[in-house]
Amino acid sequence: MPCNAIGHHKGAASLWLKCTFVMDSSAAVLTVGILIGHYGIDKSSDSAPTWVKDLSKDVDENLLEELLSEVDKNRIEENLRVLTKVPHLATTAGDEQTVQLMLNRWRDPETGLDQAWREEFMVYLSFPDPDRPNKVTVVNSSNDVLHTAREKEKAYTPDQENAAVVQPYAAYSPAGQVQGKLVYANYGRMTDYQHLSKLMNLRNAIAITKNGRTGRADQAINAAPFGILGVLVYTDPLDMNDGFMSDANETYPHSWYMPPSAVERGAYASTYGDLLTPYLAAKEETYRVPLKDVTGIPPIPIQPIGFEDAYMLICELDGKPAPPEWQGGFNCTYNYGGPGFRSSSAFDNSDVKLDVFNYGEVKNSSNVMGVIRGSVEPDRYVIYGNHRDSWVHGAIDPSSGTSVMLELTRVLGKMVKQGKWRPRRSIIFGSWGAEEFGLIGSSEYTEQYFTKLSERTVAYINVDIAVQGNVSLQAAGMPSLQNVIFKAAKQVKAPGLDSMSVYDKWICYSNRTSPVYGLIPSLGYLTGAGSDYAPFVHYLGITSLDISYTFDRTKTRARIYPAYHTAYDTFDYSSKFIDPGFYTHQAVGKTAGSVLVRLADSLVLPINCSDYAESLEAYLRMALILFEDQLLAMNISMEPIKHAVANFRSASNHLEQVIRSSDLANETPLKLRKINDQLMLLDRAFLNPVNLQSKFRHIIWAPIQITTRTFPGLSDAYFRAKLSRTDAAWAQVHLLVSVISQVIEGAAHMLRDVI
Amino acid sequence: MPCNAIGHHKGAASLWLKCTFVMDSSAAVLTVGILIGHYGIDKSSDSAPTWVKDLSKDVDENLLEELLSEVDKNRIEENLRVLTKVPHLATTAGDEQTVQLMLNRWRDPETGLDQAWREEFMVYLSFPDPDRPNKVTVVNSSNDVLHTAREKEKAYTPDQENAAVVQPYAAYSPAGQVQGKLVYANYGRMTDYQHLSKLMNLRNAIAITKNGRTGRADQAINAAPFGILGVLVYTDPLDMNDGFMSDANETYPHSWYMPPSAVERGAYASTYGDLLTPYLAAKEETYRVPLKDVTGIPPIPIQPIGFEDAYMLICELDGKPAPPEWQGGFNCTYNYGGPGFRSSSAFDNSDVKLDVFNYGEVKNSSNVMGVIRGSVEPDRYVIYGNHRDSWVHGAIDPSSGTSVMLELTRVLGKMVKQGKWRPRRSIIFGSWGAEEFGLIGSSEYTEQYFTKLSERTVAYINVDIAVQGNVSLQAAGMPSLQNVIFKAAKQVKAPGLDSMSVYDKWICYSNRTSPVYGLIPSLGYLTGAGSDYAPFVHYLGITSLDISYTFDRTKTRARIYPAYHTAYDTFDYSSKFIDPGFYTHQAVGKTAGSVLVRLADSLVLPINCSDYAESLEAYLRMALILFEDQLLAMNISMEPIKHAVANFRSASNHLEQVIRSSDLANETPLKLRKINDQLMLLDRAFLNPVNLQSKFRHIIWAPIQITTRTFPGLSDAYFRAKLSRTDAAWAQVHLLVSVISQVIEGAAHMLRDVI
Repeated sequence: MPCNAIGHHKGAASLWLKCTFVMDSSAAVLTVGILIGHYGIDKSSDSAPTWVKDLSKDVDENLLEELLSEVDKNRIEENLRVLTKVPHLATTAGDEQTVQLMLNRWRDPETGLDQAWREEFMVYLSFPDPDRPNKVTVVNSSNDVLHTAREKEKAYTPDQENAAVVQPYAAYSPAGQVQGKLVYANYGRMTDYQHLSKLMNLRNAIAITKNGRTGRADQAINAAPFGILGVLVYTDPLDMNDGFMSDANETYPHSWYMPPSAVERGAYASTYGDLLTPYLAAKEETYRVPLKDVTGIPPIPIQPIGFEDAYMLICELDGKPAPPEWQGGFNCTYNYGGPGFRSSSAFDNSDVKLDVFNYGEVKNSSNVMGVIRGSVEPDRYVIYGNHRDSWVHGAIDPSSGTSVMLELTRVLGKMVKQGKWRPRRSIIFGSWGAEEFGLIGSSEYTEQYFTKLSERTVAYINVDIAVQGNVSLQAAGMPSLQNVIFKAAKQVKAPGLDSMSVYDKWICYSNRTSPVYGLIPSLGYLTGAGSDYAPFVHYLGITSLDISYTFDRTKTRARIYPAYHTAYDTFDYSSKFIDPGFYTHQAVGKTAGSVLVRLADSLVLPINCSDYAESLEAYLRMALILFEDQLLAMNISMEPIKHAVANFRSASNHLEQVIRSSDLANETPLKLRKINDQLMLLDRAFLNPVNLQSKFRHIIWAPIQITTRTFPGLSDAYFRAKLSRTDAAWAQVHLLVSVISQVIEGAAHMLRDVI
Repeated sequence: MPCNAIGHHKGAASLWLKCTFVMDSSAAVLTVGILIGHYGIDKSSDSAPTWVKDLSKDVDENLLEELLSEVDKNRIEENLRVLTKVPHLATTAGDEQTVQLMLNRWRDPETGLDQAWREEFMVYLSFPDPDRPNKVTVVNSSNDVLHTAREKEKAYTPDQENAAVVQPYAAYSPAGQVQGKLVYANYGRMTDYQHLSKLMNLRNAIAITKNGRTGRADQAINAAPFGILGVLVYTDPLDMNDGFMSDANETYPHSWYMPPSAVERGAYASTYGDLLTPYLAAKEETYRVPLKDVTGIPPIPIQPIGFEDAYMLICELDGKPAPPEWQGGFNCTYNYGGPGFRSSSAFDNSDVKLDVFNYGEVKNSSNVMGVIRGSVEPDRYVIYGNHRDSWVHGAIDPSSGTSVMLELTRVLGKMVKQGKWRPRRSIIFGSWGAEEFGLIGSSEYTEQYFTKLSERTVAYINVDIAVQGNVSLQAAGMPSLQNVIFKAAKQVKAPGLDSMSVYDKWICYSNRTSPVYGLIPSLGYLTGAGSDYAPFVHYLGITSLDISYTFDRTKTRARIYPAYHTAYDTFDYSSKFIDPGFYTHQAVGKTAGSVLVRLADSLVLPINCSDYAESLEAYLRMALILFEDQLLAMNISMEPIKHAVANFRSASNHLEQVIRSSDLANETPLKLRKINDQLMLLDRAFLNPVNLQSKFRHIIWAPIQITTRTFPGLSDAYFRAKLSRTDAAWAQVHLLVSVISQVIEGAAHMLRDVI
């Protein structure tokens, strides 16, 4: 099925031609790594050591096809059903059930892994108090309660009635009882509060904000300096539901849209990893930072509510109408608030009262780990992970990923147990705990095994929300992994289609024009900390990939599937509205499985440094356009970055030339290892030497505040300097230019001839 | 010659017996690595790839013997003569001459290396102003100058008359003209100033202090908080000259003792590396910290003087006699000073005036680099380095090391050029610039090639002051290198002796009893930043060794050879009083050469992790004795460290068991590589994860303020907490316990089976 049949109506024929052409040429380029070594040693005799042949083995494409054909959608469906039977919030009984499930599967004598075990960390979590639920009320001056927000989401299936459904809350919000006049603060960004503060005194007010355009923690952090006492946050139906609001016939269970009472839970700390033990694995005796010294916890109480309650509040607000870009999906005008409600309202002169009884607790959270030991290079790891904990039933987040992972480990484990296959490199599977509280399980893992993982990990593959739609692959990762995800995506049929590959559909929904390859699917960047790839990317500097399948973004404003973090993210929801038949889960499983096996088995690692060069060149072009004139005016030369990027390009080209021109299967295995080490360690060279004591050390992907497609640290520093105009701020820009130059030069040195 | 003949008279016979026994048993243990692979593949046939044999080659002991026999003392002598013809202070014309010399030698078509080049860094140096020499004077209230300290050292040979001899000065002392009443402050330690401040008001005084018991920078840093305006520093004849003071017949040119006018120059910044570009290689466009923000520069002027001038000042001081432990070698009582001189003195009521005209300048400093490319594992580096710059002629510091390095590179280069030998791993030689200003050349090198060096360097060998005496080897380094330096030391005859090895003499002068090996030579620890090993050890975490030959410390109080950093550190001095005949230079060359070749050629890296375990166990025992009771009282358990050390021990034993029981020469070369990577990266695991933004990151060796033979960070934190008794200080102790546990557990993980 050509692209035009699935949405692109204009110029479909020529696009189709372009597509086919591109695929051929990029396929040719991308298979270079695979062709090498095809003519391995076949002159074996008694006198050649037996290991010579093993060492020169490349990916067995036939075996890989066989392996992928084993990925069974019905089993994935069954996995999902059992994983989502009960809510499995981190460290609860439901979580423990999933621990046991993983261990049983991974220890299965017929289909399990070589080894599986649990690793526990004692981490600081935050929960609502079941005996004193958090409350949001409207109270008048006589303290009469005029309105109480729902404490539970409405039940449409037995799932929502499960006693283990946690009350919607903002994890890490401090406990506190605050009340004040309500103001509407749009998305709770700093600019939103600044705008409001020019119109009224915000002191002692309560703000109500919408989810979606800023970090969760920021909504409270931004509010506090203005004297705001507490924040309510909700998801506006315009942002998530394309305006649909009625659960009579519009929202779930009638569609994928969030029902009026649905509430998005979330962690509201501004950093990741256990908050009490930064840089240290949270073991029993580990030193813990006193709570008063912990940074990144919201300064004031914050509580999420459903849009049905938000509607009751916002539509009653006094004050001037907020500007058009602040308006949302309710059938009323969004006023700023007086602060407070308008006099014609039943809530006239009333306060909004916020009672948050969250408490913090250090609890045992488990990662479940499993491995398949590598045959030739056991000390090289390909890590495949996903978190196991969910806010409620988590059918999509994270169990779509977990159900796929369990099927992949079954297929791979069976091959291993049958003696049909063993990867060249070791594969480590991680089922992380407490991700929802801030990527805690994966962070503690990277902290505990810091050096070992830094030195040995070839790549990290994250499949968290494997399926939130059935239209297109959505992948993000280092540009150097573009070739391997493309190769995998070409190998797998799009869900339910025989005539198009995952790649074919991907390129139609998300594409870009590469100077080298022409039109190709667009691989996203891992700049944020949205899932467990963050500690691998930003802390360890490990080449990573995040894989999922998504919906058609041209057809909805939803930033994510609408049941996200609510009590409606259930098996029922997923199997009805996200992936009926589980074809998409299967396609993601095959795609991720192909990437995994290629990373584990390829003779030459499928890490393409010249694709990294292309991204750096694009970053550089953008940086020159955005910054160069102004920097020159400040006597800051960008020549060192130009030099570094050019150097990286030439080193990349040279290394790929060496790979292409070498018969690596027949040369000393140490030559191959040397090249693979160069590729493996490439991203490590990008860690920021002047900001090593940080969880955002990867200079190419973080830290990012202002989204530009260029060096994020430089971009942030530049815009800060433009605003503040101080010498110190420009000095920071100059420092960043030096840092970026040095790390890129350092990466180029890693790729060059080793001496 | 047994030990008793060279100093140990008591129980000599039994010691000798013990010595022989120990040497036999440890030799057996230590050669295990070498024996492995001895029976390499000899069943070669047409069908086995040709590289199979190369990959299994171990150190060729015959070739090594041949190689060492080529090390020629006369050539070393000639090297030293040419290296020390003129002063070669960093970045001066003399320095450039040595750059050219190195390049010429290393590019020699018959005896040069594979490649040699220079690398320039633009670094911040500090010099006295030749047009306005620094002055130390005594001035009375009418501003008459009653005494002027010497501006140049007295000439005994033409060397001292060379116009390029730099005036004695304290590099990085700020310029400034200060005057005040003189006080005597012993060694200028914080405790010394505290003691003084209880006796008198130190505000506006000038202090005079002795070199030797604290860091150079500390003498001024410690003084400033008391309101002291400037510091004079000198070397007391008691500390360095065993009391000898007269140049008529006692000091140089009559002996090795420093003449009365000799002045020890030095850098007085408190950190290492270029001060303006921390963590970044100092290239032309690199961001530079504004001078006002640079940390580690002395807050007040400081100037060194000779003891003849110090005598004139100290013996005239007023005030009470200083305590016995403050007294020195002068034939007068050391009084504290009134402040100021006593009324019976010609200096009565006079000030001491200090005019420092030092200026800072960013200058081009060169490292000269040379390499021999490895045949089998070119991407594994053994780095051998020494600085090239000296304060004046630097015959001992650093040219004893450089003359030896040049001879070693000649011998190795010739072997390579003749096709007789090529190391398994690459050897990199570094002739560092500007070490005297704070290890600058080596630091910038480690900053520029941070990732590459971290990932590929097997070991760093530093030979700076190769020879400052002819009595005993003095080596310091990671315990894991003990075995290879022992092996080398046993292979080489002690200077001028046929019957004793370097090892035999070493064990007699410096020894300890190991639980495993019995009596063995004592390998020192690289805790400080005294030479170019510091950036390798403390910043990169690279297994390192510092090698030199020294004098008999039982026979002198000198902390170092007395001409250190003076204009008397010349060829004349070295050839007359340090190593007549150059036998010792030759022995050091052979010893270092043997270590170098073993590290470069051994099939299994001669890095012994169980010797590291022994040191950690000793650290732990000491920590338990010193800290455990008090820590328990503060609710801090040391169990995690005990657990970690035990774990490290068992992982070490296990790995060595694997090495012993494997036929690594005949197994896949990747198994060997895996083990070697485990050994190579061991020290990297010890970098402090909560203090990565630091030049002292190696938790086992730094940072150290209080010298105890235990975990230095813990020890410092403990004693701070004992003093301050604050919760925050005890929290730091707990944090250190957690950090130490985690890094040792991490190191154990590196050594364990890889999955």
